[in-house]
Amino acid sequence: MTQATTSERTHTGNPRPANTTAPAPGHVTTGPIRGSRKVYSSPEGHADIRVPFREIALDPSANEPPLRVYDTSGPYTDPEEQIDVRQGLPKVRTPWLARRGFSPIAPREVRPEDNGNASGDHLVAPCPAPHRVLKGADGQMVTQYEFAKAGIITEEMIYVAHRENLGRLKAAEGATERLQDGNSFGAALPEFVTPEFVREEIARGRAIIPANINHPELEPVIIGRNFLVKINANIGNSAVTSSAADEVEKLVWSIRWGADTVMDLSTGRNIHNIRDWILRNAPTPIGTVPLYQALEKVGGDVAKLSWDVFRDTLIEQAEQGVDYFTIHAGVRLQHVPLTANRVTGIVSRGGSIMASWCLNGHRESFLYEHFEEICDIMRAYDVSFSLGDGLRPGSIADANDAAQFAELETLGELTQIAWAKGCQVMIEGPGHVPMHKIKENMDKQLRECGEAPFYTLGPLTTDIAPGYDHITSAIGAAMIGWFGTAMLCYVTPKEHLGLPNRDDVKTGVITYRLAAHAADLAKGHPAAKLRDDALSRARFTFRWEDQFNLSLDPDTACAYHDETMPREAHKTAHFCSMCGPKFCSMRISQDLKEDAIRLAGMEEKTKEFREAGGKVYVPAE
Amino acid sequence: MTQATTSERTHTGNPRPANTTAPAPGHVTTGPIRGSRKVYSSPEGHADIRVPFREIALDPSANEPPLRVYDTSGPYTDPEEQIDVRQGLPKVRTPWLARRGFSPIAPREVRPEDNGNASGDHLVAPCPAPHRVLKGADGQMVTQYEFAKAGIITEEMIYVAHRENLGRLKAAEGATERLQDGNSFGAALPEFVTPEFVREEIARGRAIIPANINHPELEPVIIGRNFLVKINANIGNSAVTSSAADEVEKLVWSIRWGADTVMDLSTGRNIHNIRDWILRNAPTPIGTVPLYQALEKVGGDVAKLSWDVFRDTLIEQAEQGVDYFTIHAGVRLQHVPLTANRVTGIVSRGGSIMASWCLNGHRESFLYEHFEEICDIMRAYDVSFSLGDGLRPGSIADANDAAQFAELETLGELTQIAWAKGCQVMIEGPGHVPMHKIKENMDKQLRECGEAPFYTLGPLTTDIAPGYDHITSAIGAAMIGWFGTAMLCYVTPKEHLGLPNRDDVKTGVITYRLAAHAADLAKGHPAAKLRDDALSRARFTFRWEDQFNLSLDPDTACAYHDETMPREAHKTAHFCSMCGPKFCSMRISQDLKEDAIRLAGMEEKTKEFREAGGKVYVPAE
Repeated sequence: MTQATTSERTHTGNPRPANTTAPAPGHVTTGPIRGSRKVYSSPEGHADIRVPFREIALDPSANEPPLRVYDTSGPYTDPEEQIDVRQGLPKVRTPWLARRGFSPIAPREVRPEDNGNASGDHLVAPCPAPHRVLKGADGQMVTQYEFAKAGIITEEMIYVAHRENLGRLKAAEGATERLQDGNSFGAALPEFVTPEFVREEIARGRAIIPANINHPELEPVIIGRNFLVKINANIGNSAVTSSAADEVEKLVWSIRWGADTVMDLSTGRNIHNIRDWILRNAPTPIGTVPLYQALEKVGGDVAKLSWDVFRDTLIEQAEQGVDYFTIHAGVRLQHVPLTANRVTGIVSRGGSIMASWCLNGHRESFLYEHFEEICDIMRAYDVSFSLGDGLRPGSIADANDAAQFAELETLGELTQIAWAKGCQVMIEGPGHVPMHKIKENMDKQLRECGEAPFYTLGPLTTDIAPGYDHITSAIGAAMIGWFGTAMLCYVTPKEHLGLPNRDDVKTGVITYRLAAHAADLAKGHPAAKLRDDALSRARFTFRWEDQFNLSLDPDTACAYHDETMPREAHKTAHFCSMCGPKFCSMRISQDLKEDAIRLAGMEEKTKEFREAGGKVYVPAE
Repeated sequence: MTQATTSERTHTGNPRPANTTAPAPGHVTTGPIRGSRKVYSSPEGHADIRVPFREIALDPSANEPPLRVYDTSGPYTDPEEQIDVRQGLPKVRTPWLARRGFSPIAPREVRPEDNGNASGDHLVAPCPAPHRVLKGADGQMVTQYEFAKAGIITEEMIYVAHRENLGRLKAAEGATERLQDGNSFGAALPEFVTPEFVREEIARGRAIIPANINHPELEPVIIGRNFLVKINANIGNSAVTSSAADEVEKLVWSIRWGADTVMDLSTGRNIHNIRDWILRNAPTPIGTVPLYQALEKVGGDVAKLSWDVFRDTLIEQAEQGVDYFTIHAGVRLQHVPLTANRVTGIVSRGGSIMASWCLNGHRESFLYEHFEEICDIMRAYDVSFSLGDGLRPGSIADANDAAQFAELETLGELTQIAWAKGCQVMIEGPGHVPMHKIKENMDKQLRECGEAPFYTLGPLTTDIAPGYDHITSAIGAAMIGWFGTAMLCYVTPKEHLGLPNRDDVKTGVITYRLAAHAADLAKGHPAAKLRDDALSRARFTFRWEDQFNLSLDPDTACAYHDETMPREAHKTAHFCSMCGPKFCSMRISQDLKEDAIRLAGMEEKTKEFREAGGKVYVPAE
């Protein structure tokens, strides 16, 4: 068992509420999350591996150590880091990659069409942060999958093992109850995560660490059924880009609140340069859909799409450092007719583009036909596959239909090919699915795709609540996460209606964090419950500040409390604001508890309670 | 099979956005919901029974009839009704009750302590709406349960049967697919609801119609596992009551967005008079917790609580017309010690009061000891029991523990007594429960309580998201609703933090409506999917106005669309605002579909598609 270590560097937490309004132009949001401080911890014997955590300090009256939580936010929440988006983030993986003997190559030259032919004032300048392009040679081990298969534990594997453990050791040491209280539906959650366990899971194809060798700024993350459930947030460029920092801010804002990975779904002009700014400033894995840019390069004319332009785009983005590509290679010509009688046809952008391309020439998908070449390219940089579900259902009526499942079967076939080529693979999933049809999705995915990690959008459990689809989908997301999905793609309140703004993105991320946590609890992840328990103890003993700080969104929790009870004294009030000082069940119950009601001493205690006045009401201040 | 009928009175829909800002002082929110009109329909042969529905008109291009949906909003959304809260609502049940031969009685005299001894300017005036108090005599049949057992179908039963069917007949007639696609976990959902089916369900104790004979304004609602899942919203008086209309507005606002029942959890001053205003203006069942008022009457001193003051309060509230009472008779002395080691003790207000009372005298609960007398009182007015879960878990740590389940077993025992006394009964449930422990709650409740309807609060599936507990609980609510819970008590974003404002109430109600609908879909309720399908068709064919109007919250859906695409022309745009005119999968997919892709004619169609230019991009206007 790897030992959690003592080599820690900590920063004094800043109790000021963090700046959560939009930053000044040219800047991104920085500073700690309310009540937290950034800490780093290294696995024993690996001083060069610094894993970030967030530590939530508790009131001294709690008599509890600070609670350490998983931290996706990167250096932006560390007050000691100098953040300059022009310089990019520290390249933490460079020494690890150096040991693997990659030679820098001459990068592909940037062409005007990479940025949608933007020029002059319309052109976003390239990111000045230095970037050396690496590529694996033929026969050289590059991917985490290849290392894992060869029995080699990489620094990334050690990193994620330490990152995932998160309190498990402490929980295991002090455990008075069974750590694993849950139903994992056949997942094999370890009591403690070792680097060797990580390696085995990757070698079996059950987990991936999306980690392009051209993304040295990455803080590695593992995605798999036997690890904590992850969430993804989508961002995209604005029609009018005011500055590159504004685009980077979308990333920074998403990871601040808990996005584990971020997909850049930009289209239109400047996408190459904006992607560069994002990657050089991204501590999380970045995913893209290369098909979008390929289509831009041919002026949006599907008929002109070709393997050549797609191949060129894969190389362009792989060199930039994208960690995973959505590849819609499962949309085959023969599947298109299966969608003809659907209520909502094809709702995936990539899926509809490929279906159109196939139909246009009555020909097989070039993604399917060139799949092995795609694998060869992605392997050389360790870009992970996210095999796209181009035929996912877009309505309750279309859930689990022939088109969806035919594509899923094809994805299973492609998974085997990608593995044989040495690539890491995850599989995308639906969509809109009523509750009673969710488990069938998970079970079929595990069966067809050899337990490769499942990465689902929601699913939305009803179609009738536009404006609230973060909630209709959180229901499905929590359930499918419980059943075994490894990563949940967020949905914002604007889904189906418009483009998410800053508040929508935060709402989407927090909603998915809570859904992922509900799934972790139900699966029985060791130590997942520690945070719930800490918060509930804070709640029961009226440590209001602790309750806010332990929550997923301390700013909102505090602001809501302020609305009803604005005064500072209320933050130490021994009653709930919901019921007021009278009728406070927590207060009454705490009185009862403090009187140490026990079966044994009950009559005596009862007498004391009565003699003390049997108070239920607490005097209002 | 009862026939849906032709005797309808309809009003022209008003396309103006409804007034959703707070109404002027002294007034309540009125006017139709956006894009809808109120319609009434009578079951064949029952012209005196007018059941309200809401009809959503669709764009002529849809070539679809208007969609009829369940309508909880009462006369307030009918532009032809004259709303005057001083007069109260029309007494639709008076003729039905008259036939049952109840004699008006001299009402209990209102005492100063009923209103917390408020006087002068602090006293809210009584509601001037006329109110005659009825009471059943010994041996006279009063309750829906008694009628059902005697084989008699009441007007209320006919009413709810017609109300529940809602499109089932039409669906059954035009059905090309199986109507019931779901997993109902043993519930017996009928293809069509007949009054006789309603009677049987009530006689078996599996459903209730909370309908105090002193609440003639009621539009009856059925709560049971084999009917549509219902939701409850809680309201409570303000510390400073500016006007009685403000208190009525809370009710009106809740039912406008879909609350099936409303609980008045007021404490403090004026509660008697405010309750009167609410009842005389409530088309939905109203529930209360009489213990709160009883405690007020003894100055908040639990030690002074007694059977006498409680009994007096039951009669007071029963005469006013309260439809169901939460009675915490399952909190027995012997259960209190079981909570001693909990993380969050007793979180129910009623539960903590009763635990304190029991402990105070080391004596058995007076609610438990006088349970038969409580039954006798409630039977005489047909007040339904909502047997309170005073020991529900307040944290993930305490879920499904010995205290909770001991109480549930006691509630099962009390259910049998209440049935023997002729009363209608439902059972309250948790609380905070992780996903993997939810089904156990439902299964045990069905087993212990003879399938009496279950009425749960959430449950919340994690403790770590204060500020988002409408979502943590919607996950649990949707699941437990699917498993068989008959009514879901809403949770607002302010849960644990503060008092919900107008927006919070709406958010809570809509969130629970979508959770209830997700449950109905998963159970396989016949015709539940009609609304999803109608909305999805509207979505796929870019009928934006139809999409908004078919949604649970048309105002928000439209407002969100406006944020990205404000112009009127955008409401007929043939692309999604999410992707813009380029990359619109719906558009591409619709093109594909319109080209009638079929296996048979595929090659030919492909040629046509290509010759026509194979367009994917739609020209921006």
